[in-house]
Amino acid sequence: LDYQHVQVPFEITLWIMLASLAKIAFHLYNKLPSVVPESCLLIFVGLIMGGIIYGLNDKSPPVMDSDIFFLYLLPPIVLDAGYFMPSRPFFENIGTILLYAVVGTIWNVFGIGFSLYGICQVRAFGLRDVSLLHNLLFGSLIAAVDPVAVLAVFEEIHVNEKLHILVFGESLLNDAVTVVLYKLFRSFCEMPAIKTVDVFAGVGKFFVVGIGGVLVGLTFGMTSAFTTRFTKDIRVIEPLFVFLYSYLSYLTAEMFHLSGIVAIIACAMGMKRYVEANISLKSHTTVKYFMKMWSSVSDTLIFIFLGVSTIGENHEWNWPYIFFTVIFCLIWRALGVLVLTFFVNRFHVNTVTSKDQFIIAYGGLRGAICFSLVFLLPDFRRKKLFIAATTVVILFTVFAQGMTIRPLVDLLHVKRQRESAPTVGEQIHIRFLDHLLAGIEDISGHWGQYYWKDKLEYFNSKYLQKFLLREYDQPKSSIVLLYEKLERKHAIELAESGQLGHAPSHPSLLCSGFLCSNSDRAVITEKKLEDAVHPDGLEDIQEILARNLYRIRRTGPAYSRHTLPGETEPVEQAQEILILQRRSL
Amino acid sequence: LDYQHVQVPFEITLWIMLASLAKIAFHLYNKLPSVVPESCLLIFVGLIMGGIIYGLNDKSPPVMDSDIFFLYLLPPIVLDAGYFMPSRPFFENIGTILLYAVVGTIWNVFGIGFSLYGICQVRAFGLRDVSLLHNLLFGSLIAAVDPVAVLAVFEEIHVNEKLHILVFGESLLNDAVTVVLYKLFRSFCEMPAIKTVDVFAGVGKFFVVGIGGVLVGLTFGMTSAFTTRFTKDIRVIEPLFVFLYSYLSYLTAEMFHLSGIVAIIACAMGMKRYVEANISLKSHTTVKYFMKMWSSVSDTLIFIFLGVSTIGENHEWNWPYIFFTVIFCLIWRALGVLVLTFFVNRFHVNTVTSKDQFIIAYGGLRGAICFSLVFLLPDFRRKKLFIAATTVVILFTVFAQGMTIRPLVDLLHVKRQRESAPTVGEQIHIRFLDHLLAGIEDISGHWGQYYWKDKLEYFNSKYLQKFLLREYDQPKSSIVLLYEKLERKHAIELAESGQLGHAPSHPSLLCSGFLCSNSDRAVITEKKLEDAVHPDGLEDIQEILARNLYRIRRTGPAYSRHTLPGETEPVEQAQEILILQRRSL
Repeated sequence: LDYQHVQVPFEITLWIMLASLAKIAFHLYNKLPSVVPESCLLIFVGLIMGGIIYGLNDKSPPVMDSDIFFLYLLPPIVLDAGYFMPSRPFFENIGTILLYAVVGTIWNVFGIGFSLYGICQVRAFGLRDVSLLHNLLFGSLIAAVDPVAVLAVFEEIHVNEKLHILVFGESLLNDAVTVVLYKLFRSFCEMPAIKTVDVFAGVGKFFVVGIGGVLVGLTFGMTSAFTTRFTKDIRVIEPLFVFLYSYLSYLTAEMFHLSGIVAIIACAMGMKRYVEANISLKSHTTVKYFMKMWSSVSDTLIFIFLGVSTIGENHEWNWPYIFFTVIFCLIWRALGVLVLTFFVNRFHVNTVTSKDQFIIAYGGLRGAICFSLVFLLPDFRRKKLFIAATTVVILFTVFAQGMTIRPLVDLLHVKRQRESAPTVGEQIHIRFLDHLLAGIEDISGHWGQYYWKDKLEYFNSKYLQKFLLREYDQPKSSIVLLYEKLERKHAIELAESGQLGHAPSHPSLLCSGFLCSNSDRAVITEKKLEDAVHPDGLEDIQEILARNLYRIRRTGPAYSRHTLPGETEPVEQAQEILILQRRSL
Repeated sequence: LDYQHVQVPFEITLWIMLASLAKIAFHLYNKLPSVVPESCLLIFVGLIMGGIIYGLNDKSPPVMDSDIFFLYLLPPIVLDAGYFMPSRPFFENIGTILLYAVVGTIWNVFGIGFSLYGICQVRAFGLRDVSLLHNLLFGSLIAAVDPVAVLAVFEEIHVNEKLHILVFGESLLNDAVTVVLYKLFRSFCEMPAIKTVDVFAGVGKFFVVGIGGVLVGLTFGMTSAFTTRFTKDIRVIEPLFVFLYSYLSYLTAEMFHLSGIVAIIACAMGMKRYVEANISLKSHTTVKYFMKMWSSVSDTLIFIFLGVSTIGENHEWNWPYIFFTVIFCLIWRALGVLVLTFFVNRFHVNTVTSKDQFIIAYGGLRGAICFSLVFLLPDFRRKKLFIAATTVVILFTVFAQGMTIRPLVDLLHVKRQRESAPTVGEQIHIRFLDHLLAGIEDISGHWGQYYWKDKLEYFNSKYLQKFLLREYDQPKSSIVLLYEKLERKHAIELAESGQLGHAPSHPSLLCSGFLCSNSDRAVITEKKLEDAVHPDGLEDIQEILARNLYRIRRTGPAYSRHTLPGETEPVEQAQEILILQRRSL
């Protein structure tokens, strides 16, 4: 027996296997996941595993290595989050998200830090040796909402899109703030004296870390898109580039002390549309599947490790400090959300309701990032107290808040995610309104969201697509793509129900026509929406699409300061009209 | 800048990136891959990289770590090979393959070892200190044909299926022999005296290592299939199990000093059909895609590392020893193939032609396995000589033989792989003949290949499928599956050509009917086979399939010693006939 030789890969494989089997086991009993979030169950499994290891070896089980967490477990989850980020609600609420992520996190850090320092001044608690700086350092690591924990809980409760993106977006983008503040206070702890310059340098770093992360991410994202232009003859390694470049963006950002999370999200969001257009359909299935698989395994491993690491002798218990940490985490977050939302609702048309505010405050779960950061602290006397407090906060938020948030959402009748995808009609209306608003903003000289979106779209189709796409001359509208997808799905269903391939007689045709409208409707509306849109109307839309959407023309706005009307290739338009006319004859 | 922190993953990612980019670059110039095999070009890239590293650092570039090779780079390639192994030709030629792999490899080891020992006795060469045991040890590592190198070259030249499986199967299965002989001679080298018992123990080990590997592999394969029975609610982690269990089988086999390659191949071949039936279509696409991707990247990295490791100061040059090593490798392999094929042709109906023999002998490429084994040798005086000789043999076989084998195959008019997949008609005939031969063997009491295949199939459908498949009651015949696939493909083509979705009029129907037969023919015959099978015939087959193949009945052989005729669910059959009759009315 030669165990030494294969130990490392063998143990890694076994851990992943354990995680996967745990996942299967939970889903075998359908009732369990609907009551308890998966994250709680996984931590529970981890606690049991840790207890077993502790009992057998009589020493603390190995703690989750911070390096392993930040270098190998976190990136897949963030990549998945960034790649599947719904970009429309994200950019519509980017202002609010940034406000929560930056100002809110700073508010929490200083609020928690200062008030814990106040607690330390109470002589009876015996905590007078914990300095203000150490309290602020602790605040900087405990304040940040954790994307992994948030995702694990919010994915299961299906709140409305806006609320989801507010909490989730905040949890992702606050990484830049956490990185800066944590490193700032850590270096302050080691400095003999702090000058005012250092404080200002710290403020400057915010922008460097955040914007630097975005730039690194976008650079790698564009390189990735550019690389996939040349993979036509060797489709099989296409998925690799998506993973390699986004991982490189994360590592590069970490190397330069920028925000790796922000970088990987910028990379994923930047490359998505170009990569999707360049790579083959099967490659894309593989990319999506593997991303989901990897992130789900990482997620499982993180929660199991969290449980395992909790067991052991790393903790120093101090009731008041730990109790007040939990209380302050809750209070300062609630206050922060209230105050910030007040300003948001003042200056924003699309307000955040009070129910939503409650869920945002309540959904501020802490997770493995805090846990890894607290272990990365330099050794000092009270480190074990900080570890204990962090563990308690994480367990409290994941268990108490995570398990009660679903009943609360039900109780408060928080607006849920709409169960059906938007119909084609709705999509056309939304698109139409976008163009309309962009035009209004342009005329009124207001540089708002739609104005920038339109400009970006113009830049994209004028320069980026030519450079990054293999076949840039056919920018297919998403409506056309949807139509093609529906047609394909319909055809498959016809084939599977055996309506195709026989010499079709008239009755079967009628039947297939009926099936067609039926199946398409099912796809478009996902559930029951027959009452919302009349089926005949849908068929009409389809008919129109089939006849006329041969090629979508990118119609410039009728009024523009830069182009004259009619500049857009009149010859091609004339040809198309001719072709369509001839067809209808 | 904090490079230390991210060094390991960063460098790994960069190496993989280099490998992928090199692959893209080669495929951009269409002419290059058709003249030079990719493996040669990759070694060349490696040589250049090694030269650059050597020039910059003024010390030998890092050698490919044997652990990295055996634990991380080799398994993906072998898994891919095992999973996509064409099982029919493999089992049809299993006897010949095993003869080449076991007897042939032993022949080569002792042939090369003893004759090199003879060379060492020549006083003028200054090699008298190389003992017989060291020569045999060297023979044991240099004798084995390398699956990675063979695959890289033979994938490009498309020889006929039988020839391919003979060379490729041998290169995979000789691993058991190599493992045993290499470890045997290595331990002999360190023993003070060798007893006869040790030699017999060595012979016994053959069976343990080989059959043990198969058993470990099958165990993990069956566990994997069993696990995927329960993944219905959590499709996204299905692909993981295929990779985890096969990797575990490899590691477990290595741990017990069994043949890891044999284990992973048995695991992959064993689980394939069950896993395929259990997991979703998208999961399966992901599995196949990722396997190909991984093996292709591993393969690329191995050849690049081979090139890099060649540069440096690890070599001791001795003209006669190196020259005669190359010569003996060629001669003993040629002799071995001739002698063994003589016996094969004597006792086997399906003979190996002399052209095929030449290509088998000539295709005996050496590769990274030898290279890693020679670095794993214990340190002794002549190790650097062995490294130099191994490097030269690898480079000679990969470059000289690898580059000339394609012209030789052209020149000798070696039978090529048929360019088209078998038609449905052929498949039905093959199936029919299998059953016929199984019946004949059963009657004649001859326990041949078909007898065992039939027995295995019976055992499979009677016990294994019930245990391993989620929905075991519907064993779909491959013909039905093919038919469904064709129908689906046809439907998609119809949809894409815009023939579907409009209210269909009669002319378009005729047109679509025409398209149908056209596209299906294209799929079935892949190229031009219209003259072989009359198109009307194909359409008839389709018609018949569509009408009658509602559910395939597994018809037992009409004569059997174990079952009475008519035992197979007469009620269901009657029902089906009723349904079919009602339909035709």
